[in-house]
Amino acid sequence: MTFAATILTLYPEMFPGPLRLSLAGRALEEQKWSLDTIQIRDFATDKHSNVDGTPAGGGAGMVLKVDVLAAAVDHAKRVQPKAPILAMTPRGKPISQARIRELSQGPGVTILCGRFEGFDERIFEGREIEEISVGDIVLSGGEPAALMILDACIRLLPGVMGAASSGTEESFEEGLLEYPQYTRPQEWEGRTIPEVLRSGDHAKIAEWRKSMSEDHTRLRRPDLWDRHNGDRD
Amino acid sequence: MTFAATILTLYPEMFPGPLRLSLAGRALEEQKWSLDTIQIRDFATDKHSNVDGTPAGGGAGMVLKVDVLAAAVDHAKRVQPKAPILAMTPRGKPISQARIRELSQGPGVTILCGRFEGFDERIFEGREIEEISVGDIVLSGGEPAALMILDACIRLLPGVMGAASSGTEESFEEGLLEYPQYTRPQEWEGRTIPEVLRSGDHAKIAEWRKSMSEDHTRLRRPDLWDRHNGDRD
Repeated sequence: MTFAATILTLYPEMFPGPLRLSLAGRALEEQKWSLDTIQIRDFATDKHSNVDGTPAGGGAGMVLKVDVLAAAVDHAKRVQPKAPILAMTPRGKPISQARIRELSQGPGVTILCGRFEGFDERIFEGREIEEISVGDIVLSGGEPAALMILDACIRLLPGVMGAASSGTEESFEEGLLEYPQYTRPQEWEGRTIPEVLRSGDHAKIAEWRKSMSEDHTRLRRPDLWDRHNGDRD
Repeated sequence: MTFAATILTLYPEMFPGPLRLSLAGRALEEQKWSLDTIQIRDFATDKHSNVDGTPAGGGAGMVLKVDVLAAAVDHAKRVQPKAPILAMTPRGKPISQARIRELSQGPGVTILCGRFEGFDERIFEGREIEEISVGDIVLSGGEPAALMILDACIRLLPGVMGAASSGTEESFEEGLLEYPQYTRPQEWEGRTIPEVLRSGDHAKIAEWRKSMSEDHTRLRRPDLWDRHNGDRD
């Protein structure tokens, strides 16, 4: 089955962008995923093809019109009835690797990208849309975030990474950050690869990696560490 | 002054990608920022141009070699001595709008993008590199994350968004999520724009927006809300 990515955007030319290359690009050629862009402007109803208006109550920037957004979203829903619809917005729920994995196991994903000041709030009341955030920063539009979400999903599709690397031993899959990695040369600027990794003792290596993962998570991301421990209670 | 973006990557063709268009694209044409990509592979030392090796201690995937990375980073440092060097990694510090604003006010940014399993840990011990994460998800490489960081920086450069929109009234700038936005039509599918926004009473509108920002933040992002209140103590 092909994972169907549908992007609602004012800049369809931004896609597939970086996903044309490397892992995602090969997977696209091999039809492991498909890409369909929908130009939001095509759903404008007035003669000037307006997609946005000034914010009610005043303020800088422009707001995407709810009637235009709804028409575009409804069209996407007809094309991909089973794909969940995400909107990239800083007010959304922070994306998680668990949600990425769920998405990658489904029929696809439809992503609504905003530009300008934002979306008319009523689109989230009138349509079933999952508001997603990718870090506490403000972008010029949702497109770079959408590319990132797609990249994260695509690498998990069956056959994309190869059989050896299932992606389950990575950051976040166990609720922990990944352990440090090393490769040759054995010594670089006086720094050597930790002895244990050259021991050949698989149990000891696994133990060391687990303990490093835990240490890194506790020190760098106390929020993840608390959640990890909460889950085990 | 031109904001100098330097990208260390195995896929220079991914840049400027989506940043060729819209706001960032215009700013690039107007030389408000510049883009320089550095091919990491050019710094390989062996005859096969190897940039990666198998993980010490075993495991799936490949690890980027520290000697190659260091040579590429040192080159970038010579080209842009004053730009901070960021590496995109899920183990990094979550990016914040405050850090984006700092970066946008500086001379530029150098971003190291990994592929495969990750970086040899020693690069972070031997060189001054800021590990940055953009959400708790795993990508096929740092490139989509780098594009996002650049987009967030570029829109804050002087003259890019226009004088009216300083970007200070947005999500995260006050430690809160943004208030809901509306624009015409006044009524859509029976849903109307909140009365207060049509009152013309600027003080009341500001008060309503502040209270909506606070409500949204408290309900959707208790972590931000706690930090916001902690800051005021």
